[in-house]
Amino acid sequence: MSRIRFALAQLNPIVGDVTGNSLAILDAVADSYARGARVIVTPEMSITGYPVDDLASSTDFIRQSEAGVNSLAARLASDGFGDAVVIVGYLSEAAETEFGGARAHNSLGVLHEGRVLATYAKRHLPNYSVFDEERVFVPGDGTLVLEMGGVLTGFLICEDLWRSDGPVAELAARDLDAVVVINASPFDTGKDETRFPLLATRAAEFGATVVYVNAVGGQDDLVFDGDSAVLDASGSTLLRATQFEPALELIDIGGSRESADGIPLTEPHDDITPFIGADLPDLEAIWEALVLGVRDYVTKNGFPSITLGLSGGIDSAVCAVIAADAIGANRVYGVSMPSKYSSAGSKDDARELAETIGCHYDVQPIAELVTPFETQLSLTGVAAENIQARARGMILMALSNQHGHLVLTTGNKSEVAVGYSTMYGDTVGGFAPLKDVFKTLVWELARWRNAAADSRGETPPIPLSSITKAPSAELRPDQTDQDSLPPYDVLDAILEQLISQRHSISAVVSAGFDRATVERIANLVAGSEWKRRQGAIGPRISRMAFGRERRLPITVRHTPGLG
Amino acid sequence: MSRIRFALAQLNPIVGDVTGNSLAILDAVADSYARGARVIVTPEMSITGYPVDDLASSTDFIRQSEAGVNSLAARLASDGFGDAVVIVGYLSEAAETEFGGARAHNSLGVLHEGRVLATYAKRHLPNYSVFDEERVFVPGDGTLVLEMGGVLTGFLICEDLWRSDGPVAELAARDLDAVVVINASPFDTGKDETRFPLLATRAAEFGATVVYVNAVGGQDDLVFDGDSAVLDASGSTLLRATQFEPALELIDIGGSRESADGIPLTEPHDDITPFIGADLPDLEAIWEALVLGVRDYVTKNGFPSITLGLSGGIDSAVCAVIAADAIGANRVYGVSMPSKYSSAGSKDDARELAETIGCHYDVQPIAELVTPFETQLSLTGVAAENIQARARGMILMALSNQHGHLVLTTGNKSEVAVGYSTMYGDTVGGFAPLKDVFKTLVWELARWRNAAADSRGETPPIPLSSITKAPSAELRPDQTDQDSLPPYDVLDAILEQLISQRHSISAVVSAGFDRATVERIANLVAGSEWKRRQGAIGPRISRMAFGRERRLPITVRHTPGLG
Repeated sequence: MSRIRFALAQLNPIVGDVTGNSLAILDAVADSYARGARVIVTPEMSITGYPVDDLASSTDFIRQSEAGVNSLAARLASDGFGDAVVIVGYLSEAAETEFGGARAHNSLGVLHEGRVLATYAKRHLPNYSVFDEERVFVPGDGTLVLEMGGVLTGFLICEDLWRSDGPVAELAARDLDAVVVINASPFDTGKDETRFPLLATRAAEFGATVVYVNAVGGQDDLVFDGDSAVLDASGSTLLRATQFEPALELIDIGGSRESADGIPLTEPHDDITPFIGADLPDLEAIWEALVLGVRDYVTKNGFPSITLGLSGGIDSAVCAVIAADAIGANRVYGVSMPSKYSSAGSKDDARELAETIGCHYDVQPIAELVTPFETQLSLTGVAAENIQARARGMILMALSNQHGHLVLTTGNKSEVAVGYSTMYGDTVGGFAPLKDVFKTLVWELARWRNAAADSRGETPPIPLSSITKAPSAELRPDQTDQDSLPPYDVLDAILEQLISQRHSISAVVSAGFDRATVERIANLVAGSEWKRRQGAIGPRISRMAFGRERRLPITVRHTPGLG
Repeated sequence: MSRIRFALAQLNPIVGDVTGNSLAILDAVADSYARGARVIVTPEMSITGYPVDDLASSTDFIRQSEAGVNSLAARLASDGFGDAVVIVGYLSEAAETEFGGARAHNSLGVLHEGRVLATYAKRHLPNYSVFDEERVFVPGDGTLVLEMGGVLTGFLICEDLWRSDGPVAELAARDLDAVVVINASPFDTGKDETRFPLLATRAAEFGATVVYVNAVGGQDDLVFDGDSAVLDASGSTLLRATQFEPALELIDIGGSRESADGIPLTEPHDDITPFIGADLPDLEAIWEALVLGVRDYVTKNGFPSITLGLSGGIDSAVCAVIAADAIGANRVYGVSMPSKYSSAGSKDDARELAETIGCHYDVQPIAELVTPFETQLSLTGVAAENIQARARGMILMALSNQHGHLVLTTGNKSEVAVGYSTMYGDTVGGFAPLKDVFKTLVWELARWRNAAADSRGETPPIPLSSITKAPSAELRPDQTDQDSLPPYDVLDAILEQLISQRHSISAVVSAGFDRATVERIANLVAGSEWKRRQGAIGPRISRMAFGRERRLPITVRHTPGLG
């Protein structure tokens, strides 16, 4: 019985950055090799980042990816790690082109002694939810099994593990010691509650140890949570990496084979205790996902700083705290933009928030900006209200143009769903932290974040009055959101059923809601699709996020037929 | 040898409007039945409209579609057309659900004597270009062949025809008289030059007459051009419907069978000469596509009118004429929004255009709107320039809020490609007629449209100086686009290769362009992806339109690897 040390390199690649991603792999190999690891596993598409979308059809990019893998293999050997096995994910040219365009595999490469010793191409290509893999990849065939230092190991890529047919069934018949699965599996709330039972089920089916390595980091609207793990055949979790940050974890895996044909690997000289990270409560996991999503959008796109409007309301307060948690309050520029309808309380709450978290704070009243428009165009009603929101958008964009800030737009999922926003006004911005967070969840997160501060002996950052007061756009005297929308607990419950569960209007009514209300909400959702199409991206935390996960026409007219 | 009259009903369905679409089918049946037709063929998804995107996964919508087909069949019989055969396209529940979510077929239904006599489900599902059919549909199996009044007929749906394997091969082995193909096949420039040769090839392979019925109309970013046709086995075009408008064309097709098992149909009593429409030159076809795209976006979404900024430049002039051609100049509201940098010539050109086409015309100077922003925020440089564009956007949106106009955004594909636009300024609007039209093509279209007017004895609508003067955003003194961009003929040639052809930078350089210029353009394209994600939709006329056809990450960093 041999014993081989595996390293799980939970990396955060940047899409397209073959150099940077390769260097990150090299660092992880150097670090873990020095600690005795001889099989180092990195995530799906660790060379290219994920998802690459239509870059997968670029001949140039495919060549860059393949050349990148070969260079990395050579560099690993020249740096003295040639006797280790390094598992990478990359884009490789497919022998046959799919009808319509896909010409590359989503591949796993086994690097050893300066070369690509073996490859495996992903066979099950997800083409639902946020995934378009049948569009961009050609499926592979066959399985890959290698004996590495006596550990007979099979290999899978992400979706392969989720389906029982094909590669899972074929590996289950091989009496393996271990199955390595490389992944770029995005976070959604409660994902670990499906992921870990699946890992346990598969480990039992394989009768082998499952080594699950996931990417971490924000990539546009997706957040990869890591949560890499090792489970044994009994379903016990032997190792679990910290979520939402890069990690490099080690574990020793026993091998049953003594073959002269396999890859010879050095056994470790010491013993280690694998790390078992905490199971995060949902609210904490969501907060971490939002923070990571914002941080990586800012960092990977090279923004020096963030600006956002601070209205005194809950959404902007939560966004400001997320921004400060993501990149530090000294890089966050809050702007209060009061109108004649802004209450003194709102202005106080905005200033108090900025002072508590320590971000920059500026006040830019909009009265003198708005009046010329109202006068010249004789605006009244909604047109006049919207001018206020648009003047604020212009201020934030002007500050962005002058200083290079990323503008955050603070709308929440409830507002995005029903179109409760002013286009080119409060929707202005490059990133929308709360886009996938219903209003009722915004409140929960605010309370959770305040409590977390409290438990650390810090001042709770979000003013209590921002949490407790009635939500208002403050575009006219004494306005509240509930003038035009049902109470948020009702609205969110209806939206959860209509959007997340895809229930019909009748089904929602049967669940106990007022038909007229449900129909009005459904019409608002359908009628605001054009707004969502022009909205900023934001981090996905649910199983039905607006954007690439929910694709609906703008032009649509539901009628029942002639019946 | 029997003779049966077929009708090709080139319809313009609205997505979701089962009632309206069914009534349109009923009308086409009534009209053509009276003229002797007994096989009436409607387009792919004629009951539901196309594309339905994720509506295909709505159990409710699937039921609505199925109920709609049954109701239509009953209504056809009760209205006295039960002895005819009516071919419709619709969404039907699949027996098995695809892993991940698809649960419906893209189906063809044969309606006869009050019921759905037979069905066929599309087998080849396009999942490339603008199509996501593997995401939303479950593929069918088997073939459908019916003997209708002695005409042994096979059936296909759109993509089935484009691939030689599967249903095409199976039908080719059946010695058929006719093959009916129902389609929702979107326009792109020169599409007929691939479509007609394919039809001829398949007709020869089948040794049968091919009856090709396509949808017509604009649906969000797609334009269906119709171009329905009948070709005989020798490849001769026997019938061709007018493009870009609904049509109902008749043709008699001979049957070789005398079976008692088939569907008995009445032969026609008279003779007809099938219509053979003109082959439109590319510029005319593109113009018609843009006009139809705008018209149907306005009409299907219920806008009373259009507004747009008239700068005196070529883009806004062409958009105004497209709008007037689409819905009539009396529903078009042009707004001149001059600044201190607007030349007298530009203001004259804007007014002249409005007078020539006869649209509404308003002048809203922006100086007094912009100054308060510049003063309060101490704006200079690009931030000050952008405020001008954003003030214009605010004016147009305010007018839209007051009067219900759809705002057209006038940017062309060259600008959209390199991000030469002010976000929330000139990008404001719900529809972008020139989004897929390169600047050099905008000029060609302007000249073509003026010449077309001239040839009809009308005043050419677009002022010559708008066509001939150097393009300028007029955001600072003496600015021209060529201060920051290469000449448009060079820019468009590079963009054509980088975007439409997906060539690498090196390949474009090899084709004779300056490397520094090509690299700069490629970087501008990649860096403006976030702008495109928030941009309005516009009609697709190319084989590589921005939007659903070209899916790339916002966050991306191209590097060559360690090599």
